[in-house]
Amino acid sequence: MTNQRLFEIDEWKIKTNTFQREHKRLQESLTSLANGYMGIRGNFEESYTGDTHQGTYIAGVWFPDKTRVGWWKNGYPEYFGKVINAMNFIGIDVYLDGEKVDLNQNEIESFDLELNMKEGILRRSAVVRIQDKMVRIASERFLSLDVAQLCAIHYEAECLTDEAVITLVPYLDGNVANEDANYEERFWQEEAKGADSHQGHLVEKTVENSFGTPRFTVSAVMANMTQGFVSESFKTAGMYAENRYSYETKPGIKASLQKMIIVTTSRDFEETELLVKGRELLADILQQGYEEARQRHIAEWKERWAKADIEIQGDDELQQGIRYNIFQLFSTYYGADSRLNIGPKGFTGEKYGGAAYWDTEAYAVPMYLATADPEVTKNLLLYRYHHLEAAKRNAAKLGLKGALYPMVTFIGDECHNEWEITFEEIHRNGAICYAIYNYINYTGDRDYMKEYGIDVLVEISRFWADRVHFSKRKNKYMIHGVTGPNEYENNVNNNWYTNVIAAWTLEYTLENLAGLPAEKRSQLGVHRNEIEMWKDIIDRMYYPYSEELNIFIQHDTFLDKELQTADELDPDERPLYQNWSWDKILRSSFIKQADVLQGIYLFNHRFTLEEKRRNFEFYEPMTVHESSLSPSVHAVLAAELKMEKKALELYKRTARLDLDNYNHDTEEGLHITSMTGSWLAIVQGFAGMRVANETLSFAPFLPEEWDGYSFKINYRKRLISITVTEKSAVFELLKGEPLHMTVCGEPILLNGRYERWTSNE
Amino acid sequence: MTNQRLFEIDEWKIKTNTFQREHKRLQESLTSLANGYMGIRGNFEESYTGDTHQGTYIAGVWFPDKTRVGWWKNGYPEYFGKVINAMNFIGIDVYLDGEKVDLNQNEIESFDLELNMKEGILRRSAVVRIQDKMVRIASERFLSLDVAQLCAIHYEAECLTDEAVITLVPYLDGNVANEDANYEERFWQEEAKGADSHQGHLVEKTVENSFGTPRFTVSAVMANMTQGFVSESFKTAGMYAENRYSYETKPGIKASLQKMIIVTTSRDFEETELLVKGRELLADILQQGYEEARQRHIAEWKERWAKADIEIQGDDELQQGIRYNIFQLFSTYYGADSRLNIGPKGFTGEKYGGAAYWDTEAYAVPMYLATADPEVTKNLLLYRYHHLEAAKRNAAKLGLKGALYPMVTFIGDECHNEWEITFEEIHRNGAICYAIYNYINYTGDRDYMKEYGIDVLVEISRFWADRVHFSKRKNKYMIHGVTGPNEYENNVNNNWYTNVIAAWTLEYTLENLAGLPAEKRSQLGVHRNEIEMWKDIIDRMYYPYSEELNIFIQHDTFLDKELQTADELDPDERPLYQNWSWDKILRSSFIKQADVLQGIYLFNHRFTLEEKRRNFEFYEPMTVHESSLSPSVHAVLAAELKMEKKALELYKRTARLDLDNYNHDTEEGLHITSMTGSWLAIVQGFAGMRVANETLSFAPFLPEEWDGYSFKINYRKRLISITVTEKSAVFELLKGEPLHMTVCGEPILLNGRYERWTSNE
Repeated sequence: MTNQRLFEIDEWKIKTNTFQREHKRLQESLTSLANGYMGIRGNFEESYTGDTHQGTYIAGVWFPDKTRVGWWKNGYPEYFGKVINAMNFIGIDVYLDGEKVDLNQNEIESFDLELNMKEGILRRSAVVRIQDKMVRIASERFLSLDVAQLCAIHYEAECLTDEAVITLVPYLDGNVANEDANYEERFWQEEAKGADSHQGHLVEKTVENSFGTPRFTVSAVMANMTQGFVSESFKTAGMYAENRYSYETKPGIKASLQKMIIVTTSRDFEETELLVKGRELLADILQQGYEEARQRHIAEWKERWAKADIEIQGDDELQQGIRYNIFQLFSTYYGADSRLNIGPKGFTGEKYGGAAYWDTEAYAVPMYLATADPEVTKNLLLYRYHHLEAAKRNAAKLGLKGALYPMVTFIGDECHNEWEITFEEIHRNGAICYAIYNYINYTGDRDYMKEYGIDVLVEISRFWADRVHFSKRKNKYMIHGVTGPNEYENNVNNNWYTNVIAAWTLEYTLENLAGLPAEKRSQLGVHRNEIEMWKDIIDRMYYPYSEELNIFIQHDTFLDKELQTADELDPDERPLYQNWSWDKILRSSFIKQADVLQGIYLFNHRFTLEEKRRNFEFYEPMTVHESSLSPSVHAVLAAELKMEKKALELYKRTARLDLDNYNHDTEEGLHITSMTGSWLAIVQGFAGMRVANETLSFAPFLPEEWDGYSFKINYRKRLISITVTEKSAVFELLKGEPLHMTVCGEPILLNGRYERWTSNE
Repeated sequence: MTNQRLFEIDEWKIKTNTFQREHKRLQESLTSLANGYMGIRGNFEESYTGDTHQGTYIAGVWFPDKTRVGWWKNGYPEYFGKVINAMNFIGIDVYLDGEKVDLNQNEIESFDLELNMKEGILRRSAVVRIQDKMVRIASERFLSLDVAQLCAIHYEAECLTDEAVITLVPYLDGNVANEDANYEERFWQEEAKGADSHQGHLVEKTVENSFGTPRFTVSAVMANMTQGFVSESFKTAGMYAENRYSYETKPGIKASLQKMIIVTTSRDFEETELLVKGRELLADILQQGYEEARQRHIAEWKERWAKADIEIQGDDELQQGIRYNIFQLFSTYYGADSRLNIGPKGFTGEKYGGAAYWDTEAYAVPMYLATADPEVTKNLLLYRYHHLEAAKRNAAKLGLKGALYPMVTFIGDECHNEWEITFEEIHRNGAICYAIYNYINYTGDRDYMKEYGIDVLVEISRFWADRVHFSKRKNKYMIHGVTGPNEYENNVNNNWYTNVIAAWTLEYTLENLAGLPAEKRSQLGVHRNEIEMWKDIIDRMYYPYSEELNIFIQHDTFLDKELQTADELDPDERPLYQNWSWDKILRSSFIKQADVLQGIYLFNHRFTLEEKRRNFEFYEPMTVHESSLSPSVHAVLAAELKMEKKALELYKRTARLDLDNYNHDTEEGLHITSMTGSWLAIVQGFAGMRVANETLSFAPFLPEEWDGYSFKINYRKRLISITVTEKSAVFELLKGEPLHMTVCGEPILLNGRYERWTSNE
């Protein structure tokens, strides 16, 4: 498997000075920018006629694309919800003596592209030959962390060889399509447009749909700050508005402009106010100026990094990898809006529809807990809380009680459309409960349980209690017809992971019901016989287990399979999902992502090291890690089992998954939600961080290949730095009160600096 | 469950004198006409603005509608093939003093509708009030069994109350759509059209598709024979051509015409020849005249009935039901073209895409064997033989050896698009082998095996040998990931029926390989180690069995379910597929159609009566018979087990399934392939007909409610009538050589008449 690496190794930058047209989409994915409110792929401002995926996405703006299947069955979701490609607002066409610059057609003399992760700025310059003239173009852009609605671009062009007329045409273009539209249909209609000498605007609205889901209106206003032009004009046509400036230039004299765009949406303002609000915001920015806006943006990034950076000494590739992951993750979500969540591809592509998955609860929550303020995670939890009624409707649609959270969603309704996922991959419900546990266990915010958490727990418990059935023959409760985390099987019976998380949910709910005020308890209306039923299910849940192998069995008939390990596979067959038929995959023993091991990872303290080892040794060899979510969980377990080499191998896979395009699909967008994996692998894996029973603990070790690593965590109003070198692990309390915690099993009170020498072990 | 019965009881007719607009679609389905070459729903000739499903279908003319699923997986079929609604060629608009007759809007004074099954003719008349005038309209039409391309209509209109100008406008209209089109797209484009004073033509072609499947051109030419008109004109527009005749009439003077339409297609002629050929055929018919064409058509029906009629004394409802089933089945298919097969809805609707399913081999073959010449069945077998290469491609697509016949097909490629069906419902491959066995066992045509059958058997055996896997733990061969005949479960492991028919296929193939000429054997290239492997699979196939219950288990974990019986269901929940979520259905113990019992039915002679009884008693109570294919199989077994009441109950369900709209879906089209079920229930059930080891046997009994029944069968160049009354069963050799056969276990030589008295038993 040869991976593609487009960019050089640099600890804070993603940069290259070569332009590979054949990897344009990959380059675009990797140089995506976002600010939680909106995002754009690393598209060029100027025209590009080659293969490209122009992509602009606005958080929470989506469309329900009608589902069509062979034969409809009751309970099938009616649509596939997808994030929609919004208008191209970055575009600036460039002409040299009337000829359009096009990096696909023009000869490129030099090229520089750089994404500065410290600052959140994308810069690009190129020298291009047009006829016998050489022109240098340069752009700098950012999506502001200070004013979420702002995209700012500084653009310039200079003819290096001759006098020339350079024309710059900044525009707004609503004529965009989704690559994944079912029938090449368009999702936008024009509402308004206009332009004058230095400004332009375009307002578009999602077309009608027959499912009653909300329509969205998006407005963009642009102001172009420029001078020295000899002529100017403006134009509107179709869903399009432009300004046009021509400059008489010669070497040393640049044509340059600053394009400031404000994007407002009907999610935040009245539809009729969008333009007005956009213009107000724009006026503020214009007064501030480009440079000030840029500095404020950079300052925000600085603050984020101060809380979350990880340093790795001795491995620049991995250093770059982990920073890239943190950068892209924080670009996608930083908790500003509890109506939003984290799409698997963030704002970098259309695959997976841009909606929320269980990835958030299972992978993102643990990292946000430690790297950002508790409010960030709380907002992720509230997102689900606000969808409780929708989750109850979703369960009812299947004829079941309680709440079934959707597998894929924007506003609480199921947005995916394959029954083997939507009906069956119900373990997601467990992850949502686990996230509540995780949040409270980490932050100590017990009020969350009383105010919000318990409502979700009770309804999910009601779901589980209705979804199990009792097998008289085995005298056990069972859960048939599920898809576990391993999506390379489906419709299996008694998936161990699902049964474990279902029973745990009931336990955790009962535990928390007990401590509630009477008023809240009566409001929840949990009846005595309901509680008895839950207890009975906890007592008599069926967990497939092999006495012979002493392992938990993935599901009832897993061991009847032809048990093969991944090393028996021809490398040409990898990844399986690209090379094998789905039929063959379903019947094979190959595991897409941690399944039994996911359960052991989540409920770590319930299993002995010996149990962990036996299950890891059985399942890891069969696991092909064709989900980007998988290697990190295995890495954490491998680290705990002191399988250092294995842990590092798995870590590498997660750290540079996109930068090295391991899965051969990064051109479709980044694997945003799995970017937490490399953080988890270091912090929970190598540093052994756990929070069990509300006690923080570490058991750090240093991978042999590294010289050291350090990171910071936020824990209960404290900021703690952890630095691990060959000789010791140093814990430093940077902010907050002294803390009782555990290091390598030994309780300590952290107050100032604590160093644990490696020889101590 | 209240069923709908629109038509009166009559032994040879489907008739009514009430018109129920709310059941228009149901009426249309039930009064469908077809002649194996084309078919039309019981639409009215004149305009009808109410809810209606205008449907014209031409055998073998289909379109591949692109498949769109959430996430594509390798091996998924690329399209859903569907029969397409072709042009409306029966249309005749009628005007009274310039006002269009419309049975939806006009007041209806009287109404008569009659489908004559003996003659294959549909007649309709109505008296309609328009303003203050009363007009009587009457139509008669048939699709000729003599000239397959011919549809003939006699139409007349008479004003009963006043002088009036009546205008008749016979037309051809290509502006039709499929109700099941994915995105309301049109499948036809215009190729040619024209009209003159008494003729019109329209040629249309299926639009381009991106799958390389054939496009079809269909031509219709119409001639209108009429006289007495005062003006005439013609017109073409869009995909439309008409003639127009106006008549000055008064009571007693009718406006009348005969519309003769010839439909030719590119399946039979060069595209450029279609019109010419159509006109030639039309010229012949015009010379013959309407009356002669009608007589020839009726004569063909007479001949078919002579070989196949069943008479039931003492139950007119069931008499009508069985004749209706035979009529519709023979309308759909009578073996004229080995490129065609039997769609589940024949020519009466769009559901199921109009393609071939395993229904043909499992249900239709046994009946055609006994009721028509062997060539009819042979053509059904050759259909599959001709698709062998396509079936090999289909297996290869899944990474498997040998041949996997598609679940749904027109020309050999898979035309369905749900993985749980196409990848998994592989038992269909067994049914195709079984049909070969059935044909040879019944007809004695051993040459078929050598020339065609063995090629299919060998490739299917190769498929099974690759599709099984060996479970080391159980030391058995297993088949994981299948959907059995019970489609209310899917992706199960070791479906007993599938494992049985797979192993049987290998046995039957080996048995027949042995007797082949050396040349044929070498051509098939079956290697010694292949044969060893097949034998090993036969020896060590895993068959789920319950020692405790002494039954075959439907699949590995079936008994872990909550085992419920259908009588526990609230009638409001039936049918389940309309009232339960698919999730609930999949997890329940309710069986859609015979599954284990289907295996016992097919391999009847391998099981003891006690085994049959135990399995029937276990599975029948859980079976909801929500496939129209199911009750007949249970009826045959119930009859064998002397559960007379049960057998009759199940028989009634199959005999009048459509006439009484049992499944509440006949408005979508008739259940054509399951229409053989009522025949099977009488002949194999009540009369106990079997052909084991090439010996014909009967074990007849008379259901208590009946006075008697009789039917004819064709067996090895003999025509035999069987008449069962209370006192005896009479076997009469009507044609052919004397025959050694068995009656109630006793060997006889049938030569002339043999009567077995009931007291003999």
